[in-house]
Amino acid sequence: MNAGDTAWVLVSAALVMLMTPGLAFFYGGMTRSKSVLNMLMMSTICLAVVSVLWALYGYSWAFGNDVGGGLIGGGEFAGLANTVGAMVGVGSDSAPWPGTDALPALAFVMFQLMFAVITPALISGAVADRTKKYTMVTHSTTNAVQPQNFPVAHWVFAFDGFTGPDNVGGWIANTLKAEDFAGGTAVHINAGAAALALAIVLGKRRGWPREPMRPHNLPFVLLGMALLWFGWFGFNAGSALSAGDLAATAFTNTMLATATALIGWLLVEQVRDGHPTTLGAASGAVAGLVAITPACGFVQPVGALAIGLIAGAVCALAVGLKFRFGLDDSLDVVGVHLVGGIVGTLLIGFFGDNSVNSAAAGDNGLFYGGGLVQLGRQALAAGAVLLYSFVVALVLGYLIKATIGFRVDEENEATGIDETEHAETAYDFSSLGTRALAGASRPATPATREPVGETR
Amino acid sequence: MNAGDTAWVLVSAALVMLMTPGLAFFYGGMTRSKSVLNMLMMSTICLAVVSVLWALYGYSWAFGNDVGGGLIGGGEFAGLANTVGAMVGVGSDSAPWPGTDALPALAFVMFQLMFAVITPALISGAVADRTKKYTMVTHSTTNAVQPQNFPVAHWVFAFDGFTGPDNVGGWIANTLKAEDFAGGTAVHINAGAAALALAIVLGKRRGWPREPMRPHNLPFVLLGMALLWFGWFGFNAGSALSAGDLAATAFTNTMLATATALIGWLLVEQVRDGHPTTLGAASGAVAGLVAITPACGFVQPVGALAIGLIAGAVCALAVGLKFRFGLDDSLDVVGVHLVGGIVGTLLIGFFGDNSVNSAAAGDNGLFYGGGLVQLGRQALAAGAVLLYSFVVALVLGYLIKATIGFRVDEENEATGIDETEHAETAYDFSSLGTRALAGASRPATPATREPVGETR
Amino acid sequence: MNAGDTAWVLVSAALVMLMTPGLAFFYGGMTRSKSVLNMLMMSTICLAVVSVLWALYGYSWAFGNDVGGGLIGGGEFAGLANTVGAMVGVGSDSAPWPGTDALPALAFVMFQLMFAVITPALISGAVADRTKKYTMVTHSTTNAVQPQNFPVAHWVFAFDGFTGPDNVGGWIANTLKAEDFAGGTAVHINAGAAALALAIVLGKRRGWPREPMRPHNLPFVLLGMALLWFGWFGFNAGSALSAGDLAATAFTNTMLATATALIGWLLVEQVRDGHPTTLGAASGAVAGLVAITPACGFVQPVGALAIGLIAGAVCALAVGLKFRFGLDDSLDVVGVHLVGGIVGTLLIGFFGDNSVNSAAAGDNGLFYGGGLVQLGRQALAAGAVLLYSFVVALVLGYLIKATIGFRVDEENEATGIDETEHAETAYDFSSLGTRALAGASRPATPATREPVGETR
Repeated sequence: MNAGDTAWVLVSAALVMLMTPGLAFFYGGMTRSKSVLNMLMMSTICLAVVSVLWALYGYSWAFGNDVGGGLIGGGEFAGLANTVGAMVGVGSDSAPWPGTDALPALAFVMFQLMFAVITPALISGAVADRTKKYTMVTHSTTNAVQPQNFPVAHWVFAFDGFTGPDNVGGWIANTLKAEDFAGGTAVHINAGAAALALAIVLGKRRGWPREPMRPHNLPFVLLGMALLWFGWFGFNAGSALSAGDLAATAFTNTMLATATALIGWLLVEQVRDGHPTTLGAASGAVAGLVAITPACGFVQPVGALAIGLIAGAVCALAVGLKFRFGLDDSLDVVGVHLVGGIVGTLLIGFFGDNSVNSAAAGDNGLFYGGGLVQLGRQALAAGAVLLYSFVVALVLGYLIKATIGFRVDEENEATGIDETEHAETAYDFSSLGTRALAGASRPATPATREPVGETR
Repeated sequence: MNAGDTAWVLVSAALVMLMTPGLAFFYGGMTRSKSVLNMLMMSTICLAVVSVLWALYGYSWAFGNDVGGGLIGGGEFAGLANTVGAMVGVGSDSAPWPGTDALPALAFVMFQLMFAVITPALISGAVADRTKKYTMVTHSTTNAVQPQNFPVAHWVFAFDGFTGPDNVGGWIANTLKAEDFAGGTAVHINAGAAALALAIVLGKRRGWPREPMRPHNLPFVLLGMALLWFGWFGFNAGSALSAGDLAATAFTNTMLATATALIGWLLVEQVRDGHPTTLGAASGAVAGLVAITPACGFVQPVGALAIGLIAGAVCALAVGLKFRFGLDDSLDVVGVHLVGGIVGTLLIGFFGDNSVNSAAAGDNGLFYGGGLVQLGRQALAAGAVLLYSFVVALVLGYLIKATIGFRVDEENEATGIDETEHAETAYDFSSLGTRALAGASRPATPATREPVGETR
Repeated sequence: MNAGDTAWVLVSAALVMLMTPGLAFFYGGMTRSKSVLNMLMMSTICLAVVSVLWALYGYSWAFGNDVGGGLIGGGEFAGLANTVGAMVGVGSDSAPWPGTDALPALAFVMFQLMFAVITPALISGAVADRTKKYTMVTHSTTNAVQPQNFPVAHWVFAFDGFTGPDNVGGWIANTLKAEDFAGGTAVHINAGAAALALAIVLGKRRGWPREPMRPHNLPFVLLGMALLWFGWFGFNAGSALSAGDLAATAFTNTMLATATALIGWLLVEQVRDGHPTTLGAASGAVAGLVAITPACGFVQPVGALAIGLIAGAVCALAVGLKFRFGLDDSLDVVGVHLVGGIVGTLLIGFFGDNSVNSAAAGDNGLFYGGGLVQLGRQALAAGAVLLYSFVVALVLGYLIKATIGFRVDEENEATGIDETEHAETAYDFSSLGTRALAGASRPATPATREPVGETR
């Protein structure tokens, strides 16, 4: 065991944990002020509920010894049995990546837990402003999603032999040999496809798209972007599971792709709308983070620059399509996470370079002399996860709609779900006095740094 | 020395530092908008003042060689003498936990400093909205609290031989052998008991509880919760002082207990009030973090799940009691930190399992075959810290009240202490224009992602 | 290679990345509510644009083998060539500090990238509220600044032999032997001097200083301060490039100087204005962080306490001077970063102590028996960077002004640049209902923790 690697994975787990509140603010800032708490709670509740499910059975479904076909793990780690004081990565050939050393099993359990938490939280952006009390949303998002979340983590992240010497892992990682370094399929396509399904199940918000539904707090959107970006270094570079060369490469690719995606999105806005926006900058950054997620451990920095730029531009164009299709994917989960995840997963087929990662299971990409083989594998993995997740979410969504119901009624939607469902409102500035709110031309309080009686 | 362990402790120190601003937002969001700056400043000022006191004498009082009875350390580290370039944990048998290696002394000094900073900051929630200029609050919180803060750190955290080969430590850690991994007694019971004392000294806010005093910014409360949760991984898992098995276990227990506590609190609200709230979710998470703090290095993950659930439910019930007793503990420091700290400290007597931590000084808990011995020790430690801290804070509180005064006058309290004490107000939206504020049915600016002239 | 050191540098890079959004909130909270988005975007866009420039040529200009006179590096790392899978710090005598081990080159590339990003972002505070569309601001800040940013990084941070065995570095680090541990000259004096130049180029805001221009969101200012403070541990202690003694010392000095600077600033306010402010606390903390940046790896903790106190007081006095000189350095970049950077750089000449850092290139400071030699070197380094940066920024500023223009017109400045330049407004509380905004005496929604029907 190496203390440096353990420190890196533990820090990365903490960073990924922070992404879920980051997401809450990214989404919460985009909603109207009457439903921000509901949106914040959908992420918060995932932190609680998914963590418990993960400890009880999720980790075992994802990383237990495969029960057949690479589809789902067994029950040996249920309740986190056989993990306290145990190690992962100790078998021969057990390390997925070069440099991966043995780790305390619980460090790995926690790191992966954070991925399981954020996946259903991502979906919540599609059902903003109109979903019944969050307990129900929780029910829907977490319960609806875990059937695909935990198994798909097994498909993609469970490498043969890593959590136990003779442990058999998932089909995408070990049989198909598609490459997904940190969750382009397992997290983003997974969540994006479920978001598409749930947006269909729920239907449009009252008044959409006739009435503008402007973000109520764009600084919060940027705060969310910042926390996501910061945490994503753990998500991507932490996925190297050791603090060495590969982590540094994944970190670099994450930074560069995010940068170019932000630029790509703003360029599309500038050309299409005449002005780049703050919302576009934040969305572009997230699109880049999504797209580089599967690729960050397999491509050169120059590939990351290209992947980001493409993803930013493509996602900026994609989010406009919801108006064409009349799909109220309220906060653009499909356009950013599904589309971004697909873009990143497929572009590995072009930009993948095994000289970056000698343990990569797949072939080189098209631009690095590998032909079209890897692109085919990537498409198959993306398609399988997309289809599986979409169907499961659609079925569960309709099941919930038909039983306990999914949407609040018209009157409550108009009043705002924070008040009708939670008996709270996000803000109360009433004690501040009207001066600071009502556009008075001249506040009574002097500006604090202007020497009184001197400059005025 | 191990660079991995040093990296982990330095990162943990930074994470714990972030908890104090996190607390500021957790509390600041709960106050009314006319006193949020005052609340934010009470935490901020602790970062400044306690850091200086810690360097001058606090570290030495806490971790210097005991001057007698395990009550307080000597002066050999005053002004951080004998720490630059020195190591801790180098003596024989000097490591408190398995896997603890030697560390740069200043890494340990900084890690512990952050605990000393947040302890008085925690108290400030009890005196919200009515305390005189923060310089005075500072005076009261820091000066009032350091007499118990620094010595109690010595009682609980100073292990024999750790900061010097022949160094004698504190009575709770070494003589009583009560277990407190990361500060259930030294931080939370300590702060909670002082908060109880100061709420008594100050008395109720004008109008309380007749007038509702709603949180002015619930997103800030959740932001504070998120930063606290994130930073608490450093607080708890960093307390292993090395990046290995025990840190991973403490990290896991922290995550799981927080999750179940959040659920436990919301369940109580659902049953009692008919609707779970955002404020409850944030409070439940913090209650879980508090309760697992002493236990995280001594219990199995299943124990953490139980401790969190119990703490969340008990604290949710406890905060309701302030109305019964007429105690205006404004932001529920007593209900969350004192009660949560007691719950966690005592439950070690039930769930403690030395197989998790072979260096644990105490016996196994009741459920792990250890009988009632450890429970008795835990109760004694909790009671001693509670009593000591309450009495010191009460005496100092009355002393301050009688001399320089503690509360603002009625008029200033009504106007709001931000304006009367600081000549500032937290927000000024006046330049934004009335459209964004006054509930206009239709803003003029189009929603940024809706193609103009197409969907409307 | 040591995984612990690599983990530390990667975490530090992530921490420094978070400083730029932290800065955005620190500045964004200070602007009026009609131009907050523009301010937030100026930092955000630096994250994107500078990252790309850094990958393309910036790193190579800064850390490539010197092309002559220690002024600028060559092109061998352009496009991050020769960095993937490579190491830095492997030559004989290549480690700038004691304990520095070899690192993955890309970890170092990323750590230094974050410094390059925040330097132009710092400048944006000087041009708040009146600058044309941020694409142009970007153009100005990034393009204008990179000619000095990348070369000055070479002058100060490129140590002989670190990025290649026979690599020759910059003149300040290797020839002059002035000391700047983490960027007092290369980041803060650099940015502060450019801010001074641009404030002159742009001129005053409409109405300044007659009309008060109050911070619109002081909690955001404190949030920004908190993120800056947190991230600065990576900035300063990460600059040790290893997780050991020196990092712990730099961390300690950072914490202590920030604490005393905050106190120093508030003391000046108390004496001068009669009340310490929240804005002053946040500004004081940042002033301390700035001043300790060059010194944190060269001074004793007691020196850090002194440097912070001096910097806090001096900067508090300095920001008042802008009214005297009629210079609308809107958010006090000159007073905090230029003055704070100079103070910290010069005070190394007094407090520098080579027993803290055995690899320090310079002499001891005056108080540690080193005479005035080092002070002279420090002054020369500070002056050279100041002059160079000021002249380059002034020339480029006027060039931009004369061509594409720098300021919006009067009408747009009055309306607010968020709306006129970005077609967005930061906040929209209109759906919240008037009750929460208009100062109603009694909200209808009950306070969530007050048992209904019992206390009222």
